[in-house]
This record gives sequence, structure tokens and C-alpha cells, in this order.
Amino acid sequence: MADTAQTRFITLEGGEGTGKSTLQRAIAEKLVATGGEVVTTREPGGTPLAEAVRELALHPPEGDSWSAMAEALLMNAARSDHLDKLIRPALKDGKWVICDRFADSTRVYQSVKGGVAEAILRNMEASVLAGTIPSLTLVLDAPLETTSDRRSQRGGAKDSFEKRNDDFHHAVRQAFITLARSEPERCVLIDASRDIDSVFEAAWTAISKRFDLKAHA
Amino acid sequence: MADTAQTRFITLEGGEGTGKSTLQRAIAEKLVATGGEVVTTREPGGTPLAEAVRELALHPPEGDSWSAMAEALLMNAARSDHLDKLIRPALKDGKWVICDRFADSTRVYQSVKGGVAEAILRNMEASVLAGTIPSLTLVLDAPLETTSDRRSQRGGAKDSFEKRNDDFHHAVRQAFITLARSEPERCVLIDASRDIDSVFEAAWTAISKRFDLKAHA
Repeated sequence: MADTAQTRFITLEGGEGTGKSTLQRAIAEKLVATGGEVVTTREPGGTPLAEAVRELALHPPEGDSWSAMAEALLMNAARSDHLDKLIRPALKDGKWVICDRFADSTRVYQSVKGGVAEAILRNMEASVLAGTIPSLTLVLDAPLETTSDRRSQRGGAKDSFEKRNDDFHHAVRQAFITLARSEPERCVLIDASRDIDSVFEAAWTAISKRFDLKAHA
Repeated sequence: MADTAQTRFITLEGGEGTGKSTLQRAIAEKLVATGGEVVTTREPGGTPLAEAVRELALHPPEGDSWSAMAEALLMNAARSDHLDKLIRPALKDGKWVICDRFADSTRVYQSVKGGVAEAILRNMEASVLAGTIPSLTLVLDAPLETTSDRRSQRGGAKDSFEKRNDDFHHAVRQAFITLARSEPERCVLIDASRDIDSVFEAAWTAISKRFDLKAHA
């Protein structure tokens, strides 16, 4: 089992359009500049098998849909492969792993979608993580006006999560805030409505503090 | 939650080549002849989404493989969809549901494959079944010599379970026997090394008794 105090495992969480992938790139560049080896990855996905599950989970055939329970099981199946084949080996080698979404997204989306008892979700998560818990989770928070602009600017086909309405995105936002506040020792809530430099600065301050890094300019 | 004493839910279990699908057809014909409405289905699969999961679970890309944990999660995701969209609605309508493999196969195969604590498998199963437990499970048992003949006669590409060796099939056989003996109120162990008529007769006796049917000739 991984010792969370030792592993360099950072996850980025938050609703769609909060700027997770932009921040992920900026953090990775900075960590590489400080001499670290960095693996950037995402969920659902991150390995070939997990990406195949992602495709199936996010794009069910037109007219069909997954229940929250089935979705939670699929996300955890993908996560299990991702942990086994990419995350744990990288952490064991002393690399930084920065993951765009992780277990908290399953907690938040499946509980907002409803129909699965929280105890079931927590049990499943604990079985799959088996101790590989992020050392730091940056929860990006921004008002719906900001994120809906960003979401609408995105090209391509929308997946089953992106298609939902404002009530859904509002509930997701609130659930992420509640989650961040309930685990302050792991999570740092970041105001992601600001420009990328300010968001990065807040993120880097949290990283430096959590991992006891020297404050490089 | 389904009342197992009321629901006409029969599952067929056992290793590969024990004759489950042949028996399934024979039972279905007999039940239809007695005036019942019958749904025959299989796991993993049974609904479009569950069949898509089946394909992914049984045929990972060459050189890659699922862990027992990931496999258990996938099988349960498929099962959840199958229960929601086919099994529970059919049972609710008073139909017979005869399923070729069900939750016991996950217990047996994932525990034989190893790496997942039994408590985790049981928890996952209970969450997904949510009370929809088979009223009768016929566990077909035959020596490896019989089943390996039947297995080798099958055409087509072998899936990830069929490719395993004799030690694996032996362990599966033993696990099914142990399971049947541990739940005698639900499971009936049937000697499937005999001809189909004898196997069917044993199965029909068990069905008549469990569901209190008149003994039709």
C-alpha cells in the first residue's frame, strides 16, 4: 500500500470548463523545470483498457444510457487498470503523477446523478484504491457563467456528462465544494474564475507547501 | 426488492462445456409448453450495453489483460444494466427468466483468478443485485475429460476464459461444487456428465420442486 506522505500523486478535480487540463500542463512544466519526472494522465482513461472503458461509459449508443450504479462500476474498472498499470508503477519510481480527474469525480458525479448509496460508492472506491490516495487534490471552482462559456467554446461532440443542464452543473459545483471542505487535509479549493497565472500561482503555493518544495521563482 | 420466493428466476452455472446453453433451451421449451412466458438470457451480456461490456471484458486487445478486480467491476457493471433493463422488468411481469451464468460465475472465476478479497466480491454483488437473487440455481458439474471434449469441439476464437489451462478449469469446477454445497437452499448440483435427457430430467425435477409445479409428463 502506498504511503500518501511519500507519493507524489496530485489530482485535479472540478466541474467541466474549470480549466483542469490547462492547469495540469502548467504544473507539469513547472515540476519538470524543477528537475522532477512527471507523468500526466486523466480519468476516465489513462491506459488503453481504461480508455476503451471511457469510450463505452461516455458514449453509450444513442437512446441508451447507463445507470449511476453501472457508471460507477465502469469508472472503477477503468481506475483499477489505470492504477495497476500506470499510476502505481510511476509513483513507485518516484515520479510525479498529475491526474486530470480521479476518484472524487466518481463520488461527485455518481452521487449527483443519484441512485447509489454513498456507502456503496465509498466501499467500491476503497476496494479499488487500496491505499493509493492522492497526496494533494486541487479542486477548481468557478461560477457557472465562467465554465459554461468555456464549455460552449469546446468543439466536437458532447459526451453524456457535458450534455446535461445548468441544474446538474450547479449540483456538481456544490458537491465539489462540499467535498473539498470535508477533506481539508487532502483537498485545496482554488478559485478558478481568475486568469491562468493567478490560478497557477494558487496551485503552485499549495503544491510547494504540501510537498515541502523550495519556492522557485 | 424482489421476493425470491415469488420470482421465477433460474440461473444455470458451471464451467465451460458443461452443457448450460443446451439445458437452457430444453428448460425454456418445457416451460413454454406448460404455458409460461419465458425469457432466456446470458451473462455477461443480455442487453446491448451489457453485451458491449462483455466484448470488452472477454476480448481485451492482444497482449493486454484485465486484473481480477477490473474484471469483477466490469462484470458487475454489465449485470447492473442487465438487471435494470431485462431481468427485473421480466420478473415483475411474472415471466420466467432463465439466465446462462449470473453472479455465481463472477464469484467463482474472479476468486479462482485471485487477487480480490471475497468480502469485496460479496459486497459488490450485494450492491448490484439489491435483492434480486435467483430462486433456483442449477450448477452443472462434469469431469474435465467431458467438458474439455465439448470445449474443443467449439468453433470460433477462444475468449480469455476459454484459453486457460486444465488447472484453471479444475479449480473452477471445485469452486462451483463448493458454492453449490454452501447454499443448498438455492443451488442444486447436477451431474452433467450424462446424456441431455438425464440432465434435463434432473433439472426439471429440481424446478418442479422449487416452484411447486405439477409434474407434467
